[in-house]
Amino acid sequence: MNEFQLIQQYFNASNLAFDQDNVVKGIGDDCCILKLEDNQQFVMSLDTLVEDVHFPKHASAFDIATRALSVSLSDLAAMGASPVAFTLGITLPNADETWIKEFCEGLSAVAMEFNMPLIGGDTTKGPCLVLSLQVHGVVEQGKALTRSGAKVGHNVYVSGPMGDGAGALPFALDSTKIFEPGGYFHQAFYRPLAQVEFGKSISAYASSCLDVSDGLLQDAGHICQASHLAMNIQSDLIPLSAELLEEHGAEKSLTYALTGGDDYQLLYTAQHCEKGICIGEVKEGDGVYLDGEILSKSQRIKQAGFQHFN
Amino acid sequence: MNEFQLIQQYFNASNLAFDQDNVVKGIGDDCCILKLEDNQQFVMSLDTLVEDVHFPKHASAFDIATRALSVSLSDLAAMGASPVAFTLGITLPNADETWIKEFCEGLSAVAMEFNMPLIGGDTTKGPCLVLSLQVHGVVEQGKALTRSGAKVGHNVYVSGPMGDGAGALPFALDSTKIFEPGGYFHQAFYRPLAQVEFGKSISAYASSCLDVSDGLLQDAGHICQASHLAMNIQSDLIPLSAELLEEHGAEKSLTYALTGGDDYQLLYTAQHCEKGICIGEVKEGDGVYLDGEILSKSQRIKQAGFQHFN
Repeated sequence: MNEFQLIQQYFNASNLAFDQDNVVKGIGDDCCILKLEDNQQFVMSLDTLVEDVHFPKHASAFDIATRALSVSLSDLAAMGASPVAFTLGITLPNADETWIKEFCEGLSAVAMEFNMPLIGGDTTKGPCLVLSLQVHGVVEQGKALTRSGAKVGHNVYVSGPMGDGAGALPFALDSTKIFEPGGYFHQAFYRPLAQVEFGKSISAYASSCLDVSDGLLQDAGHICQASHLAMNIQSDLIPLSAELLEEHGAEKSLTYALTGGDDYQLLYTAQHCEKGICIGEVKEGDGVYLDGEILSKSQRIKQAGFQHFN
Repeated sequence: MNEFQLIQQYFNASNLAFDQDNVVKGIGDDCCILKLEDNQQFVMSLDTLVEDVHFPKHASAFDIATRALSVSLSDLAAMGASPVAFTLGITLPNADETWIKEFCEGLSAVAMEFNMPLIGGDTTKGPCLVLSLQVHGVVEQGKALTRSGAKVGHNVYVSGPMGDGAGALPFALDSTKIFEPGGYFHQAFYRPLAQVEFGKSISAYASSCLDVSDGLLQDAGHICQASHLAMNIQSDLIPLSAELLEEHGAEKSLTYALTGGDDYQLLYTAQHCEKGICIGEVKEGDGVYLDGEILSKSQRIKQAGFQHFN
């Protein structure tokens, strides 16, 4: 058994490769096996994260793991899906057992919280740390939330405060600027709560949905494009956390909320929804309006030069 | 649209992201959506391939693609599954459009041959080329072939000649030693035919199965371990191709066949099977015997120092 095979045993531990109703067979054969209950469909999403691109090189193994799995889970939330299981391809420069142990503890923390075991994957040696995670969930047949169902007159909602992802970034980028351990911005960056329960709760009401990863305005554009409609967002309705406002002030906070990305809140449209925070409405036309003024595509995209781990 | 978003359009082309019966929604939303027919289960496998570890740095984009997808498909063959679709996480140092175009042509060639469209993934920038492919297939409920069902008295079979993967390796490793274009060893290394049809055809007969990627003896050990049994393999029954014998001679060819790996033929057990080539039998006990002599674990594993892209 070489060091990499040894490492794989950490991935097969009981707090990571546990049982789940849809999983027939997990780690240990050429393939894993999944089943569906009657009237279910699978949804799944693959994300790749590269060291120094999607997370800082100085991040801890635990934090890298929780961020990677939380960010991937957010795609299931955006479909209104229930998590089932995930697979992991990991490329490592060396098989450092302490690092792997801590990394698996991070994976396990999120996996257990969402009842989503690890069911397969691949461990390889390579020049830098690269992670590919595929998350798998189930939805009731035909009930997956997509980007393409928005309708004129529907309201636009978000599931929670915007801008915290970008607000956390100065801490993440600068290894000398210490995150308060377990503090608000550390959580926002390394363990953003995937809005899985929220996604399931709105799936009967929402006409379109996605998770905000690229930035509110840019992601609003994705719904407009897929639904062939326009959207007006009112900046004064966008929820901002007290922590963001205190750390960065009103003006910067709003910029972060509009263009920052990495928030992993849901952006969705519905005729009416009690749950979320209404920030605008769907209109006829094409493109995204902010306070009644149409925005160019480049205005929707995060500012150039804004260094970003997304 | 940045260069990486532009590149993603190649992945969304009609010869790669085509329709398939089990695919409800492919590329373009937060998740793809898959459905099952009654009485089907999903099987899936994730493989990660790293430049200069799993394929030579000088390999063409087309060859890298056909190898990556063929090798991944082989895991579906080993389960007796029908291919459905695949996802791809790709990390690239730069977005070279010519390279990507050729890479997508390679993917398309295999994807179309096996009716297995690309349904999602992620494209990221990183210091070196890393590919993570997840293949998805379907089997009839409870009919997936696994490693754990071998029974005493069953015969041991392979689906075709062994050793060609290792026999091709000197050509792959040495950029000055040219593969005959489209020749036998080039195919063996860069486009090993995944034994999908063979796997489906034996699924009613086989008691255990896997695909030979680590080497015949080592993989035989995997079946023994999972089935809690022993196996005797007769070296004179192992099929060797005329091409392998001609290039490497009898002795080296047999070593390649036993320990070389990368063959992607199926190794399976059955009471009786008309299709494959019988190379031995399942016995009570533990471990792998070669011509009646028990082998240590290290003897089953490829020789140390044998440089290997696997």
